[in-house]
Amino acid sequence: MRNVYVIGVGMTPIREHWDKSLRNLLAEAIARSADDAGISLRDIESIYVGNMSSGYLQGQEHIGALVATQLGLIGVPACKIEAACASGGMAFHQAFLSVASGMYDCVVASGVEKMTDAITPDVTVALIMADDQEYVANYGATFVSLNALVYRYYMEKYNVKQEDIALFPVHCHRYAQNNPYAQYRRAVSLEDVLKSPLIADPIRLLESAPIGDGAASIVLCSENFIREKGLSPEVLVQVAASAAATDTLSIHEREDISTLTASIKASRKAYEMAKVEPNDIDVLEVHDAFSILGILHLEDLGFAEKGKGTVLVKEGELEVGGKIPTNLFGGLKARGHPVGATGIYQIAEVFLQLTGRAGKSQVDGATVGMAQNVGGVGSTVVVNILKRVR
Amino acid sequence: MRNVYVIGVGMTPIREHWDKSLRNLLAEAIARSADDAGISLRDIESIYVGNMSSGYLQGQEHIGALVATQLGLIGVPACKIEAACASGGMAFHQAFLSVASGMYDCVVASGVEKMTDAITPDVTVALIMADDQEYVANYGATFVSLNALVYRYYMEKYNVKQEDIALFPVHCHRYAQNNPYAQYRRAVSLEDVLKSPLIADPIRLLESAPIGDGAASIVLCSENFIREKGLSPEVLVQVAASAAATDTLSIHEREDISTLTASIKASRKAYEMAKVEPNDIDVLEVHDAFSILGILHLEDLGFAEKGKGTVLVKEGELEVGGKIPTNLFGGLKARGHPVGATGIYQIAEVFLQLTGRAGKSQVDGATVGMAQNVGGVGSTVVVNILKRVR
Repeated sequence: MRNVYVIGVGMTPIREHWDKSLRNLLAEAIARSADDAGISLRDIESIYVGNMSSGYLQGQEHIGALVATQLGLIGVPACKIEAACASGGMAFHQAFLSVASGMYDCVVASGVEKMTDAITPDVTVALIMADDQEYVANYGATFVSLNALVYRYYMEKYNVKQEDIALFPVHCHRYAQNNPYAQYRRAVSLEDVLKSPLIADPIRLLESAPIGDGAASIVLCSENFIREKGLSPEVLVQVAASAAATDTLSIHEREDISTLTASIKASRKAYEMAKVEPNDIDVLEVHDAFSILGILHLEDLGFAEKGKGTVLVKEGELEVGGKIPTNLFGGLKARGHPVGATGIYQIAEVFLQLTGRAGKSQVDGATVGMAQNVGGVGSTVVVNILKRVR
Repeated sequence: MRNVYVIGVGMTPIREHWDKSLRNLLAEAIARSADDAGISLRDIESIYVGNMSSGYLQGQEHIGALVATQLGLIGVPACKIEAACASGGMAFHQAFLSVASGMYDCVVASGVEKMTDAITPDVTVALIMADDQEYVANYGATFVSLNALVYRYYMEKYNVKQEDIALFPVHCHRYAQNNPYAQYRRAVSLEDVLKSPLIADPIRLLESAPIGDGAASIVLCSENFIREKGLSPEVLVQVAASAAATDTLSIHEREDISTLTASIKASRKAYEMAKVEPNDIDVLEVHDAFSILGILHLEDLGFAEKGKGTVLVKEGELEVGGKIPTNLFGGLKARGHPVGATGIYQIAEVFLQLTGRAGKSQVDGATVGMAQNVGGVGSTVVVNILKRVR
């Protein structure tokens, strides 16, 4: 496999973008990533777009060709990659493979979701399509309610209190204040979280990722490309690993819903590929669609024993300066979660850390960063590891 | 790039499968392809699924994890690839890259579309999502009507008669009789076509691909895999080229709608990659969603001068024994067109020809075969070339 590098990223702020349609958001993010990489749009040889629900929410499929047209990149191959909320991470995985293969020298992995101002207001219906329509959604389960089952089971099994789990969004909101692209740039207290409305018992509003519009993009390229274009990035960031795994689509088919097996599988594969261990990770982005997932992920990815994830939050280990600085751009909870774009935002954030561009949330000397992106209730997990090699 | 081989294919018949849901069709096709390749399902390391409208028609996204679960392949990476009607060809392209990269040794490129017995009967709404929702679909255009514009423009520009264009579906129906998987295994006459109901002037019912349910799957692997598994296929088929290109999403943005530029670009790239010329192609599958497209493709792919495509049909050159045997399994018109699966059916059919398993439609000694899969009105074109190397 050829080495693959990340040389630029672009993001739109996440919010309700009623003045921009899906194509505008996506084209903007891709154009920004090309600018950031110091390349021309014309250098892009293929476009990957992570997206889940453009068909249902916008009545628009074929968004690969849509954005190629919007950017004036007529001719450039483009396609959409869908793996529910892991669409972004999966788009990155495919983009990585396409450069690693030797066929393409410069591609973009992008992601977009426009969840407000859609042709249907029914985002809840769109989201449960990540789980089994015939055997789960049809019976009235929503995506939040499935995660509520995981939450309650975890609390019972490990005797952990909601007050501790609810610290995760508090952490995320604190750091989102430093992220100009975050949807909610304000702090919330533990009390705010615990007093916020109940969405699906025991999950409260402030433990749940919001709905928003956003797009993000990453430029990946080969060594050849860097040389031929005469690029000389001060810091060079390599894709050290890209790995994906699935689990059963639905939680009722699993033995133990307090562990996301796909997360274990994808991360172990990624660690092996990157030749690193959890100890080597300097910055981490996890898929905290709900507070409980933030905790589960810390455990399943190997940063805490099962049942002990909350200890890391309580003891400040997720902070800048902690053992495993996590979600320093606000995570899904506060940066926002435009579904198909989320995985791309995460990797872009890791890139900003490794290149020393994370502002007030910068982890000094960060060299290895990992992003974990999850689709469904852990039905698909994609783990990507970036490494600063110069 | 590593060499990539096709070692097995699986298809379901195309029809109204009211007794099977999307997951059943897809799992069946994948299982058949594994059987055909002589491998165990457990050998599959990654699953690509071409599909356009499962979200809209089934209320089901995340069909990668869905089918991995259905097959018992818990853990195996899986994702959906969408590029409208070119989803299947694009899924094959990505599967090809994943093996070429060296990361995966054995993957499946599959495709599925369940268009009948859906949660919405509105397939016309689903299909126009291949074009621009905001600037085209919103104004009432259907997918057939856009192709009708191309049809009329072509007749005017090149002074070609409908009676000649309408010979294309007659050809396809004749050969579909030999294909056990075809949706319409019966011949139609030119008179039948010209007297069939008008769908969107001048396109008639029998010039238009039908709606149906179906799934197909192809096993791709590396040389390593063949060696390590001790496989010794009598005939060895290599992926000689896989190339994709886009055009503007909509036809109103193009200078000349009688030519599909993406078809020219993708095919020229594929010819170069495979080091072949149109003359070297022994069997061809083109994306005849409408009769006029069959004709256009023959020209744009380099088998006839512009305006002269109908001559090939009239003179019998598309037949077994002709210059360029085309759509010998019935094409989209008669084999059927379960959108996201179509590109996979096409490549599977080319594989059957190269391995001498095309029954009554066999082209003796076929060595090089090409499949062209189109999304939108030529907005995405994927061209794959297979070559018998032993």
